[in-house]
Amino acid sequence: MLGKFLDNVREVSPLVHNITNYVTVNDCANILLACGGSPIMADDSDEVEEITSICGGLNINIGTLNRNTIPSMIISAKKSNEVCHPVLLDPVGAGASKLRTDTSKKLLEEAKFAVIRGNISEIKALFAGTQTTKGVDADINDKITDENINEAVSFAKEISKNTGAIIAITGEIDLVCDKDRAFVIRNGHADMGRITGTGCMLSAMTTAFLVANPDEYLMATVFAIATMGVAGELARNRMNDLDGNSSYRNYIIDAIYNMDAMTLDKMAKVEEVI
Amino acid sequence: MLGKFLDNVREVSPLVHNITNYVTVNDCANILLACGGSPIMADDSDEVEEITSICGGLNINIGTLNRNTIPSMIISAKKSNEVCHPVLLDPVGAGASKLRTDTSKKLLEEAKFAVIRGNISEIKALFAGTQTTKGVDADINDKITDENINEAVSFAKEISKNTGAIIAITGEIDLVCDKDRAFVIRNGHADMGRITGTGCMLSAMTTAFLVANPDEYLMATVFAIATMGVAGELARNRMNDLDGNSSYRNYIIDAIYNMDAMTLDKMAKVEEVI
Amino acid sequence: MLGKFLDNVREVSPLVHNITNYVTVNDCANILLACGGSPIMADDSDEVEEITSICGGLNINIGTLNRNTIPSMIISAKKSNEVCHPVLLDPVGAGASKLRTDTSKKLLEEAKFAVIRGNISEIKALFAGTQTTKGVDADINDKITDENINEAVSFAKEISKNTGAIIAITGEIDLVCDKDRAFVIRNGHADMGRITGTGCMLSAMTTAFLVANPDEYLMATVFAIATMGVAGELARNRMNDLDGNSSYRNYIIDAIYNMDAMTLDKMAKVEEVI
Repeated sequence: MLGKFLDNVREVSPLVHNITNYVTVNDCANILLACGGSPIMADDSDEVEEITSICGGLNINIGTLNRNTIPSMIISAKKSNEVCHPVLLDPVGAGASKLRTDTSKKLLEEAKFAVIRGNISEIKALFAGTQTTKGVDADINDKITDENINEAVSFAKEISKNTGAIIAITGEIDLVCDKDRAFVIRNGHADMGRITGTGCMLSAMTTAFLVANPDEYLMATVFAIATMGVAGELARNRMNDLDGNSSYRNYIIDAIYNMDAMTLDKMAKVEEVI
Repeated sequence: MLGKFLDNVREVSPLVHNITNYVTVNDCANILLACGGSPIMADDSDEVEEITSICGGLNINIGTLNRNTIPSMIISAKKSNEVCHPVLLDPVGAGASKLRTDTSKKLLEEAKFAVIRGNISEIKALFAGTQTTKGVDADINDKITDENINEAVSFAKEISKNTGAIIAITGEIDLVCDKDRAFVIRNGHADMGRITGTGCMLSAMTTAFLVANPDEYLMATVFAIATMGVAGELARNRMNDLDGNSSYRNYIIDAIYNMDAMTLDKMAKVEEVI
Repeated sequence: MLGKFLDNVREVSPLVHNITNYVTVNDCANILLACGGSPIMADDSDEVEEITSICGGLNINIGTLNRNTIPSMIISAKKSNEVCHPVLLDPVGAGASKLRTDTSKKLLEEAKFAVIRGNISEIKALFAGTQTTKGVDADINDKITDENINEAVSFAKEISKNTGAIIAITGEIDLVCDKDRAFVIRNGHADMGRITGTGCMLSAMTTAFLVANPDEYLMATVFAIATMGVAGELARNRMNDLDGNSSYRNYIIDAIYNMDAMTLDKMAKVEEVI
């Protein structure tokens, strides 16, 4: 069941337009190829409209936003809306600077997003007016736990209602909501947080899942996140005593490359929050 | 015979100026070091003339071109011509946007290129006016096969005649032509297409081969491509069941690092098309 | 003794603001995570002041400087001074272009740096007016050896006196000085020079060491360099016949990730030059 979402990516081979940060861009490209998609990166305002049009979806990541790329993000997001392609927003570091918070808000005003994916501190910075983002990482006090999960679900459903976007809050427990339904995913490994770009990679891959599963954005998001989590577990198991975060990164991308539907179905820990 | 082209790179240790995309730039730098060259990346118009002058060759890759780097590409290419250094053009995604097509054409008007290296769709977009580029990948219908190879050779020779550049069209079968002679290279592995940047890396390395083999640009290009293909085969053989495209990328760079002339001579599948 | 400097990084988990080149930025982020720090990259002048303020230290690397990022470097460095955070300057390629030399000098005029880390040719370009930088690598004739070490120490101490910065000149023998004391570090492996970004990674990690060891900048710099050198040795030992510079890079980051205080204490080769 779950596996078919990945199989669809491999069948459709969605072309994904990424306006993303230069820190983790190579990993985003490779994970898109690993899952069966095809990446294109383009961020000059003189070409983004055209590139967005030939792609199936758009991934906007503000990790190293600047005065040249911000207008490109807005142009592309609007164009994507016009041609009915899904757009994902990854508001990296929202809350860490006014520029990041304001740019994210501006994007949300100007365009409609299929998915907003961030850590809890980023999501709070945008929708609860808090400012606890520790650089690009979530603040420990914001952490979603089994104790506060219901509160988090209500918060996320409310945001979804207001924005029309699916809200994906990732961390130790991952939470995905639309205005009506909520899912938690309990895959992955804590050490993924010691690799730069696991969130960025997930956003890129999720966009491919959206394109390939156009009628099921909510479940496509849930299962993209589960796929990343399962890859994180498989890759963690592959590590030997000398391996660290650099090898772990390679193994995660490799695990996506070799992922099959059966493994996903067996390992994914997804549950609906009723 | 073939091996001496690589040996020359190791002896000369050519300094290569790269104005290249931020997606695969790290791999380009590492493959240049792996083959025995030395990379420098510089793309601000206030310094590119100077950087080009102290280098032996210039690699221009338009993968993430923008309004700041386009003028730098033109300045550098002209300067390289002035000081008689080889310049390679990698028109990534030409055909995917007007900006990419126009910038490539502008570069070709303003400067003389030693080599133009792209996939068949990019080359067609520039010289046959078609627009079938699928993002940064070639369109399947454009594919060079044993059936249409003669047609492709005629096409490439004609471009070479008009531009004065060696034309390298890479894909499953690689084709390298000047106006008089044509070679096909049948090395590499299909899975190389699932790594981001194998084309970019090849362009960077080819530039090093040009610098180190100044009197034999045609054969330097042929053998740079064969070297990459052989590395792709050796690296593919090294992969285990858990390895995917991320490890494959590492293994390819490693294979270039460890490549020796004898292996090249033994494994290269180069033939002249008469 | 040495090990506690690394332990402090792991305890404090310093957030480091990096304005760095796009070639090696991913490795800088991963090595910061590997050593226990937390990276943030931000280079737009509209946000750098704020980002600098929430971080503990600033790493400025001019490897791909441009007209947009140069003002950001100056703003950030000044802000860091204002809030008393350590700033490190990595003048990549100083001497290779006027823009690089002038920007480095401008930065040194406008702000106070805790550490200046470069290769000998870069340091000479800035402080002795020579111009022998070979791209981003040191000129062989500039090399620090056991024969000219005393001369190098005098030179570096003088620079430290004039700038107030700790001077770290890295190469086969690494030299770290303030105006009064000098240390040489004899760790590392020559093959590290065939990986792009070992210097950049070292600068990023050194900044984390400065933040976590605020009262001992000199020894924090010495031991950050020793830590990198030891990682280079451990990673080199891990390499098999098929491994090259790409795997070596991964292994170095992995070795930092797995580094423990005891290993450092045992393997570090640090001596004071009296």
